[in-house]
Amino acid sequence: MPTLRIFCDAHFHGSASSLLQTGVGAHKLILPEQRGTSVLSTAPTDAAISQADIAFGQPEAASVLQATSLRWLQLTSAGFTRYDTPEFRAAAQARGLVVTNSSSVYSEPCAEHAFSFMMAQARKLPEALGKNYASSSPEWTYLRENSVCLLHQRVVVLGYGTIAARLIELLAPFHMQITAMRRKPRGDEGVATVTPENLASALATADHVVSILPENADSRGFISAGRLAQMKRGAIFYNIGRGATVDQPALVESLNSGHLGAAWLDVTDPEPLPENHPLLSVPRCFITPHTAGGHENESETLVRHFLGNLERFAQGAPVRDRVI
Amino acid sequence: MPTLRIFCDAHFHGSASSLLQTGVGAHKLILPEQRGTSVLSTAPTDAAISQADIAFGQPEAASVLQATSLRWLQLTSAGFTRYDTPEFRAAAQARGLVVTNSSSVYSEPCAEHAFSFMMAQARKLPEALGKNYASSSPEWTYLRENSVCLLHQRVVVLGYGTIAARLIELLAPFHMQITAMRRKPRGDEGVATVTPENLASALATADHVVSILPENADSRGFISAGRLAQMKRGAIFYNIGRGATVDQPALVESLNSGHLGAAWLDVTDPEPLPENHPLLSVPRCFITPHTAGGHENESETLVRHFLGNLERFAQGAPVRDRVI
Repeated sequence: MPTLRIFCDAHFHGSASSLLQTGVGAHKLILPEQRGTSVLSTAPTDAAISQADIAFGQPEAASVLQATSLRWLQLTSAGFTRYDTPEFRAAAQARGLVVTNSSSVYSEPCAEHAFSFMMAQARKLPEALGKNYASSSPEWTYLRENSVCLLHQRVVVLGYGTIAARLIELLAPFHMQITAMRRKPRGDEGVATVTPENLASALATADHVVSILPENADSRGFISAGRLAQMKRGAIFYNIGRGATVDQPALVESLNSGHLGAAWLDVTDPEPLPENHPLLSVPRCFITPHTAGGHENESETLVRHFLGNLERFAQGAPVRDRVI
Repeated sequence: MPTLRIFCDAHFHGSASSLLQTGVGAHKLILPEQRGTSVLSTAPTDAAISQADIAFGQPEAASVLQATSLRWLQLTSAGFTRYDTPEFRAAAQARGLVVTNSSSVYSEPCAEHAFSFMMAQARKLPEALGKNYASSSPEWTYLRENSVCLLHQRVVVLGYGTIAARLIELLAPFHMQITAMRRKPRGDEGVATVTPENLASALATADHVVSILPENADSRGFISAGRLAQMKRGAIFYNIGRGATVDQPALVESLNSGHLGAAWLDVTDPEPLPENHPLLSVPRCFITPHTAGGHENESETLVRHFLGNLERFAQGAPVRDRVI
């Protein structure tokens, strides 16, 4: 097996770092001095990438295109916005550069996170937790009467990939009416599908609209004032995709007007939001700070995912989570 | 069909009240002047119960035993603590008094509520919501690394009835290792079972311990200091059964010492807790005010459950949710 040169700009510590060092075996690891601070941030550009066959991390897109010996880029994230442009795709395809993301690492925590939002909303946890109400008090009666069961409710999932597929599995015991929006339905989704063109009627009856859209030129601003207006009054909107897919002023307006029942967001634009941003104070908006992908041993799981793909790549077998 | 006299001390309003009035048909409804204020509180004693064949609500136990013409008592709750005594059971059985609860009304919301606790804990929602942390900040890294996936974790469910059975269905997609504690396992639980006598080893490895125990002489104080110590360090305890099944000072101590990872309680003893009760301020204790059973149209569902049983009772068919 030829020795492969692996440029890694992700900053792994402790056991994840050891796992990577050991796991690459005879292949050569090139570690730049400055590395990314998290799986969400671009690493500083480093000329060392030009000597590598493989890049693992979050290298800047231009440096990837300039590194002509690169044959495979493994991203440490599920999102891949900065590579998801017609220019990057064309250049990568022209020279046979393979791009994989880590969506199979993040499908479980992200699906569970979205689901935790749905359950917390249904059982009114933000309003109920810490409230020491007496039985039969008006506040107690309000909470009891406004708590909801997910059983048999309607859900629209925007964007169908590994996270959506896993979320749909988690929802199975609730016997919900699930519709997934996908640009090009393949018929293997296991639930009803719609394209963006015929989404409106699905939105009109959904109790829950869960967006898992990646950010790209097509999806930017997809959740527009018009889409929000198409949702039925009282619908709940969830976003664990990317913040820029939402027209945030329109979201604020929909919450303020009472049209949208609530919004649960793990992503915003920008992150973090500036102090005094309207989303931080608008009623019924619940935000977690992009923690959906987090899980115990996240770094080790990312390294294991890479090492599994490294073995496949070295053997000429198809790599997992290929996006380009 | 003979006309049955139905004493109802539950205070139904609006559509639930109309549904009951219409639904009893030719049977006679006896409505006392003073009725219960919620499905959780005993209604005031009323002599009118002595004229009834059937009681529907929360009548005081002594008045039920004195009303010798009563043949069936339908409770508006899943809990039935005040009737669950050897004396009441013996007296009811001696004269053929049937007692049914409303557990099939409450199994869905209660199972979903318990599940919402598990999901919120796993995804660290109480710590993550409203925090506008920057990616890679120490607080953000802490949240990411301490968020958990339920996939493949271990659960012990204390008490196996309709709520536990439904919760176990909801957990199926997570491929967890589930053990149910039941006094007399029947072999039809679909998961591993233990009796109280051999619970300790199951507690020692469980990530989650979910109590759905009813309150009776056997269960009072069941979650003792000893049981809490048997749980592994960092385990999460959930209670949607009854507050009196827990030794609350021991629970406070276990949280304060750092042994228990967190406690999620929908029930306490008493309810509401007095101001300044230690459970209200102990760290990592999350309490909802007995709202697990709440759901849209709860009153209508209770009335429908009663009317279904009324039809069965009038025809001499077996009634649902029979507990005595």
